[in-house]
Amino acid sequence: MLMIPGPTPVPEQVLLALAKHPIGHRSGDFSKIMAEVTANLKWLHQTQNDVLMLTVSGTGAMEAGIINFLSPGDRILVGSNGKFGDRWAEVGQAYGLDVVKIEAEWGHPLDPEKFRAQLEADTGKQIKAVVVTHSETSTGVINDLETINRHVKAHGEALIIVDAVTSLGAVNLPIDEWGLDVVGSGSQKGYMIPPGLGFVSVSAKAWEAYKTAKLPRFYLDLGKYRKDAAKNTTPFTPPVNLIVGLQAALKMMQAEGLESIFKRHDRLKRATQEAVKALGLPLYAAEGAGSPAITAVAPTGVDAEQVRAVMKKQFDIVLAGGQDHLKGKIFRIGHLGFVSDRDILAAIGSLEATLVELGYEGFTPGAGVAAAARVFAKG
Amino acid sequence: MLMIPGPTPVPEQVLLALAKHPIGHRSGDFSKIMAEVTANLKWLHQTQNDVLMLTVSGTGAMEAGIINFLSPGDRILVGSNGKFGDRWAEVGQAYGLDVVKIEAEWGHPLDPEKFRAQLEADTGKQIKAVVVTHSETSTGVINDLETINRHVKAHGEALIIVDAVTSLGAVNLPIDEWGLDVVGSGSQKGYMIPPGLGFVSVSAKAWEAYKTAKLPRFYLDLGKYRKDAAKNTTPFTPPVNLIVGLQAALKMMQAEGLESIFKRHDRLKRATQEAVKALGLPLYAAEGAGSPAITAVAPTGVDAEQVRAVMKKQFDIVLAGGQDHLKGKIFRIGHLGFVSDRDILAAIGSLEATLVELGYEGFTPGAGVAAAARVFAKG
Repeated sequence: MLMIPGPTPVPEQVLLALAKHPIGHRSGDFSKIMAEVTANLKWLHQTQNDVLMLTVSGTGAMEAGIINFLSPGDRILVGSNGKFGDRWAEVGQAYGLDVVKIEAEWGHPLDPEKFRAQLEADTGKQIKAVVVTHSETSTGVINDLETINRHVKAHGEALIIVDAVTSLGAVNLPIDEWGLDVVGSGSQKGYMIPPGLGFVSVSAKAWEAYKTAKLPRFYLDLGKYRKDAAKNTTPFTPPVNLIVGLQAALKMMQAEGLESIFKRHDRLKRATQEAVKALGLPLYAAEGAGSPAITAVAPTGVDAEQVRAVMKKQFDIVLAGGQDHLKGKIFRIGHLGFVSDRDILAAIGSLEATLVELGYEGFTPGAGVAAAARVFAKG
Repeated sequence: MLMIPGPTPVPEQVLLALAKHPIGHRSGDFSKIMAEVTANLKWLHQTQNDVLMLTVSGTGAMEAGIINFLSPGDRILVGSNGKFGDRWAEVGQAYGLDVVKIEAEWGHPLDPEKFRAQLEADTGKQIKAVVVTHSETSTGVINDLETINRHVKAHGEALIIVDAVTSLGAVNLPIDEWGLDVVGSGSQKGYMIPPGLGFVSVSAKAWEAYKTAKLPRFYLDLGKYRKDAAKNTTPFTPPVNLIVGLQAALKMMQAEGLESIFKRHDRLKRATQEAVKALGLPLYAAEGAGSPAITAVAPTGVDAEQVRAVMKKQFDIVLAGGQDHLKGKIFRIGHLGFVSDRDILAAIGSLEATLVELGYEGFTPGAGVAAAARVFAKG
C-alpha cells in the first residue's frame, strides 16, 4: 500500500487498461483516444488552453514549461522553499537564465510580499517569468499561488509558470480564471496512473513568448506537440499504454466530479493532520500551510526511519522519507490521488501500532484514529 | 496484430507485468529490479559501458546521446538517408551545432566512402562526432555501420553516435567489440515492451567528452542518470511499470539467447523479402540493404494505402504507411521484436488475400507463402 507522494495508488480498472496490447500510435483508433483524453485533460485543468502530453517525468514537463518561453540571459524569479523549487532554479541556471531565487525556510510557505516587492521594483520589465511550486512535495507545504499570481498579473510582462505536480487534481487550480500561463504536472500523482507521462498547459500569452524564445530544444519543443495535438497525434512515439490507462482514470475522475475530488483531498489532509497532532507528533509544515497531497511529520521521541521501516515490514504501508538535508528527520504520508477515508484510517491505525512497538510514549493509543474519525464525521 | 516498426507486439507475460501495481521508486525492492535490469541491458547491448534508462521516446534518447557530448558550434557529420537521419541533423541544428549531412537517396544505404573522405580530410580534427542511423525505419534500410565506424576510428577524435532504435535486439551490434561510443534505442522496438522508455549506452571516451561539453541540458543530462544508476536508482521518477515489464522481457530474451534472436530476425527478413518478391511487388530498399526490422514495399499495380486499409479491416493486421514524401507510395511490414515465423506466414497469406480482393494481377496466389516457406525450411 503506497502512501507516498508518487507513484500514488492506481485503481484496478486502470491497471487492467495498462495491460491491454498497445495499438499503433499513428492509427485512427489512437487519434480517437487522443481526442477524448485531451478534452478531458482540459476539463481537469479547468482551461481552454492547450494541454500537451509528453513522455517525461514531472521534471521533464517543468523543464519544457520553462525553456520554451525564454532566451539566454532572461531574468526569472523562482520560488524556493524545498527540493523542487530549488530544482527549477537549477534548470534555469543550466540554460543560462538569470535566476533570482525568492526563498523561504523549508517547511514554511513562500512569502507573496517578497514577490510583490521584486515585481513592483522591476519597472524596466526585465523579469520574464515567475516560477512557483504550488505544492512543495519535499516538505508538504502548499504555497499561496493565488496571491503570488496576482502580483505577477500586476507586473503585466512576466509569465507565471507553475509546478502543479502534486497539486493538480488535488486542490482547486482554476487555470483560466487565474490566468496561469504554464502549468506542469506528472501522471503518477493526482492522475492515478503510473509514472511516465508529463503534462504542460500553455496559455496564448505563453505562445506569444514562444515565438521569440531562443533556448535550444527539440524533444521538449512544445510547439511540435501543439502542432500535432491539433491533429490528435504526437510528434514522437507516445506511451500508448499509459494513455489508455489515463483514459480510464479521467473517466473515473469525471464520475467523481472536480468539486468532490478537491473536497476529498481537503478532508484527507485535515484528518491526517489532526491524527498526527493527536499522536503528539509535530507537523513539519507551518500551521495552515499543509499540502492537500502530503503531510510531513518531524517526529520527536521516535526515529523517522524506524517508523518507516516498521510501517513497511509489519503493515505493508510505504511512507516517504525526507529528502536532502531532511533525510532521517521527517517522514511523509501521501494522500494524493486514489486514496479514501478508509486508507487514512488504515495508515493512522498502523502508525499508532508502530509507535507502540517502538516504545514511543507521547500519546494515548487510539487518539489518532479518533481524531481522524472526528474529521470524517464532520465531513 | 501489429506488424509495424513500433509499437511492436508485446508478450502476454510482459502485459501482465505492466498491470502490477507500481512500487515506490525509492524503495529497496525497486533498486533490486534496477540492478537486475541494468545488468541484463548490458548483456543485450554486449557492453561493459553504462546503459542508462530515461523516460523518453527513442528521439529523446538520441537527443540525449547527442547533446551531452558536444558544445555550440561543434562540427558533426550526420548520415541522412531517411526521416530519422534527417531528424538527428535537425536536433544538431536546434542546438547550434555545425551539421554536415552525408546524404544518400531514400531507399539506398549510406556510402561509407563519403564518411571516409570527410574524416580523412579533417586533419584539424574539427569533426567531433559522427551520427549514424543503423536501421533507417522510414525506408527499411540498414546502413553499414561497421564500415563507417572503422573510418571514425581511423579519425581518432570523433565520437560515433548510433541510432539503434530499430536495430538493437534485432541484429548483431557488438558495442564493445566495435567501440561504439553512444548508442540510443527505445522500448517499443526490439525490447518487446510498450513505448515510454529510452536507452543510451555511453563509452568511457564519450564520458571524457561530457566533461567539457557545454550544450545546455537538465532532464536529458546523462551525468545525472549515471550518478544515480551507480546506486541503482534514477534522478527523476522512472516509469516503474514499464521497467517491471522490461524485467520480464529481458528474461525472455535471455532464455532465447542473443544469437537465436539475431538469426530469427534475419530469417523473418529473408522470408518477408522473398515473399514480397514472389508477389511481384518491388522492395523499396536497395538489394542487400534491407533492414532486419522492417521491409518496405513500393507496390506497382496496386495502391499502398488500399493494401493497408484492407489488411486492417479484413485481417486485423496493421502495416505501417510511408512517411513524409513516401506517404501513399510505400507500405512497411514490421518484423521486429516478438514476432514468429507463423506471424510472417499470417501476414503474407493475408497480403495475398488482400491483393486478390484488390484485383491485383501481378502474381500467382500462394507464391508469397510458398517463398516464405522455402526460407523457413532452409532455416
